[in-house]
Amino acid sequence: MLELFKSLKLDKNSSTPLYIQLSDKIAEMIDNGILLADLKLPSIRRMSSLLNVNSVTIVSCYKQLEIDGYVHSRPGSGTYVAAVLPDRSGNFSDSNVILDELYQSDDLNLINNGHIKINEDTINFASATPQSNLFPVENFKLVLNEVLDRDLGNAFDYQDSQGFYPLRSSVCSLLEKRKIACSEGNVQIISGAQQGIDIIAKALLRQGDYVITESPTYTGAIAVFKSRGAEIADVPLSNDGLNLNILEYNLKKYKPKLIYTIPSFQNPTGISYSNEKRQEILALAERYNAYIIEDDYVSGLDFENMSFTPIKSLDKSDRVIFLKSFSKIFMPGLRLGFMIVPPSLKGYVIEAKHATDISTSGLIQRAFDLYIRKGMWDEHFEIMFDIYRERYNKTVKALDMYLPRNVQFHKPGGGLNIWLDIPSNCLVGSLLKAASAENIVFAPGRIFYSSTPTKLNNVRLSFAAVHTDEIERGIKKLCELISYFDRGESLTGNIPIL
Amino acid sequence: MLELFKSLKLDKNSSTPLYIQLSDKIAEMIDNGILLADLKLPSIRRMSSLLNVNSVTIVSCYKQLEIDGYVHSRPGSGTYVAAVLPDRSGNFSDSNVILDELYQSDDLNLINNGHIKINEDTINFASATPQSNLFPVENFKLVLNEVLDRDLGNAFDYQDSQGFYPLRSSVCSLLEKRKIACSEGNVQIISGAQQGIDIIAKALLRQGDYVITESPTYTGAIAVFKSRGAEIADVPLSNDGLNLNILEYNLKKYKPKLIYTIPSFQNPTGISYSNEKRQEILALAERYNAYIIEDDYVSGLDFENMSFTPIKSLDKSDRVIFLKSFSKIFMPGLRLGFMIVPPSLKGYVIEAKHATDISTSGLIQRAFDLYIRKGMWDEHFEIMFDIYRERYNKTVKALDMYLPRNVQFHKPGGGLNIWLDIPSNCLVGSLLKAASAENIVFAPGRIFYSSTPTKLNNVRLSFAAVHTDEIERGIKKLCELISYFDRGESLTGNIPIL
Repeated sequence: MLELFKSLKLDKNSSTPLYIQLSDKIAEMIDNGILLADLKLPSIRRMSSLLNVNSVTIVSCYKQLEIDGYVHSRPGSGTYVAAVLPDRSGNFSDSNVILDELYQSDDLNLINNGHIKINEDTINFASATPQSNLFPVENFKLVLNEVLDRDLGNAFDYQDSQGFYPLRSSVCSLLEKRKIACSEGNVQIISGAQQGIDIIAKALLRQGDYVITESPTYTGAIAVFKSRGAEIADVPLSNDGLNLNILEYNLKKYKPKLIYTIPSFQNPTGISYSNEKRQEILALAERYNAYIIEDDYVSGLDFENMSFTPIKSLDKSDRVIFLKSFSKIFMPGLRLGFMIVPPSLKGYVIEAKHATDISTSGLIQRAFDLYIRKGMWDEHFEIMFDIYRERYNKTVKALDMYLPRNVQFHKPGGGLNIWLDIPSNCLVGSLLKAASAENIVFAPGRIFYSSTPTKLNNVRLSFAAVHTDEIERGIKKLCELISYFDRGESLTGNIPIL
Repeated sequence: MLELFKSLKLDKNSSTPLYIQLSDKIAEMIDNGILLADLKLPSIRRMSSLLNVNSVTIVSCYKQLEIDGYVHSRPGSGTYVAAVLPDRSGNFSDSNVILDELYQSDDLNLINNGHIKINEDTINFASATPQSNLFPVENFKLVLNEVLDRDLGNAFDYQDSQGFYPLRSSVCSLLEKRKIACSEGNVQIISGAQQGIDIIAKALLRQGDYVITESPTYTGAIAVFKSRGAEIADVPLSNDGLNLNILEYNLKKYKPKLIYTIPSFQNPTGISYSNEKRQEILALAERYNAYIIEDDYVSGLDFENMSFTPIKSLDKSDRVIFLKSFSKIFMPGLRLGFMIVPPSLKGYVIEAKHATDISTSGLIQRAFDLYIRKGMWDEHFEIMFDIYRERYNKTVKALDMYLPRNVQFHKPGGGLNIWLDIPSNCLVGSLLKAASAENIVFAPGRIFYSSTPTKLNNVRLSFAAVHTDEIERGIKKLCELISYFDRGESLTGNIPIL
């Protein structure tokens, strides 16, 4: 075995670093079954003397192999060939995309158990986040470096829990355009919208308190409220927003502290509230002494100029907590967002933020502030708007063309999601399984409910992560499968998995 | 008034940008009282025509003035001279340092109300975090750029909630040296130790559950447990760790789910647990079915080679959650740390992390991983170790020399804090007020208790943020004040503020 390694030839004059040359060769030997699972690789010292290279090269090589999933190290023992080898067809970032929504649901098991595979060729209607090749990495690198040169160590010192003041100021400027009045003192910077919901829950809710949510709604919000020990009283959505009768009934009966709503291009349904409904919900919140979280999910992606009024802009009595992620349609891994907090809650929110993580990363806050100030945010948003609008149009057009007539869908006019009501004899689980065999995935509607849904036959299609050229082919195939199942031609032997 | 602005001369050929030239001039006019509080500045359009410069210049200038605190903008209304002008003697990062520990305590009011001022010349024994000029900004910039070039958009995509796999792997390598066995699967990356405590609380505690803490202890932990609705049963510290009789009594009586402990160089007391006590506490946790959070605050700062055994390394029955911040003595604003989580809790912890903020910033995780892999972390730690050891030695020496004989203090042998037991007729509040008049601050012991402390006469001195050359002067002055108050020469007319 040692002879095998000794025979490896490394080129010290190559521009490829030695450790990469070596890790490539070892990976190849593992791929070809020359080195078998659980085989212990030679120690760092032994290997470096065998190959006559520096031990740092071997350390780096073994680390690289570990990153790539070829080996694992056991502390104090050594480095071993992995038992389960990396799947060369997929990669980290691809398999991660679907996790966005499905992560905390049982459906993750579908992925983990191999029922659903996501790889580079998958047409992924399950993810509502952009593909990473659309991220403005170069510009962000520019502002990061400018901030490091400008702020030096201050960028890494403890930050104000409420957020970097200039960033709060930039947020106010952005909101002016949306007719939302705010001052730096009411802006709370957060590490993404998910954290915002968590902080509000921490500031407002005690075990047993009630929260009103839309039904269906964002899975991450359900998870927070449940984790806080709160009870969820959900209210069904009509095509123009929450059902007001049921809302008022629930407000009277449960006296909830909080109403969680996504009024524009709702996740998952795509529904937007009419302006009248926005007014009425605000009035009800005032009457029954509840706060509203207005989760501004993707209101800017308004492809048909519907210009809905933010509830916050109507809010004269400080009932509305306005919540927005910067990362959602920008760069999800950035973890950055903000809230506009009513003065009555501000102290509690700062305290909750401090107890949560002291502050959001100073470097990220400062870099993003500069990104806004340089006009790059507006510029990037316009680019993304155009891309998403094209994808939206393609998706709607393909659905119009290929969907069986008995399938309902509402054209949202914006956002990232389309919600299908498929025929009840077409089981969503079977459809998902069959689609995934054709390399197409989507999010089953069931996961967006906090309790057992009354309807099981919904599908959320997101077009954010599907390349424009793939949309028609994907929708067409999916529609064929729906027709197929609808005609009762269930694939024999397949047990529905949902 | 408009004439006044019109007369301003800007140099278009200067290397100083026009907006900076202009904001400097306006700031000067405000400083000199030429422009008074609440005066509305000319609109962007008006100002740009008055000065014959691009409107972008005016936008940037007003923004700069806002960042510097000279003006504030009212949405839809205009830009106004601020009523409270910036204090030129302090700056953002300095005034922020003390916030570290005092933030959530009433003592913040002392700062806000102007009783305690922190500026560049303050000898700050209140902060246990390093000065920002010690941060390795250049090296971190290097790894950030390398990661951006290497990972491109992947650095900003959704990340695994458990953490970036290679970073978890690097954490395991670091822990091997400490004889703590772990695998990537048990490492949870967190946005700082504070978030770790919050996530554990979320995963384990329901309202009304009991938690055992040391008394006194880290204020941030108290805040988390209280926010979760948990009851705190605190246990006093002896010189070698928790009082075991009271610990067992509380375990029997309250059946707590969790014991929160900082066994090495405890915050705030500096006390370290004997190795025997570590064993016994672990045995008690097993017997009474509680988990232990071992907060590894600064165990590496072991200046006298006491080589305490981490409780986690003794943990055969997976009772211990090992918690460590990377940011604490590195760069606090980075917000990065990790936990080793027992397999029985792992699922709950990942779920709680996901509901908290989905994941920690991908860019920061990847950059820090590379920082470790390049050996920069070990290198930087050694530099900081030497600096802190020198400051520790200076502090202890000065205390030995200048403290009145009736003041007790325990030499911790490591860490960042020294805990003084001052004579009870020297009120800590009066001492703090008098010291701050001499430009010296410290943390009053009272804030580290979850309920009314039995003793009020403690002081925590941290030497992390005090320049080595300032230590002797600061300690000497502080000791003089203690003697002064102890002799009963209370400053007449001063009402004690604590």
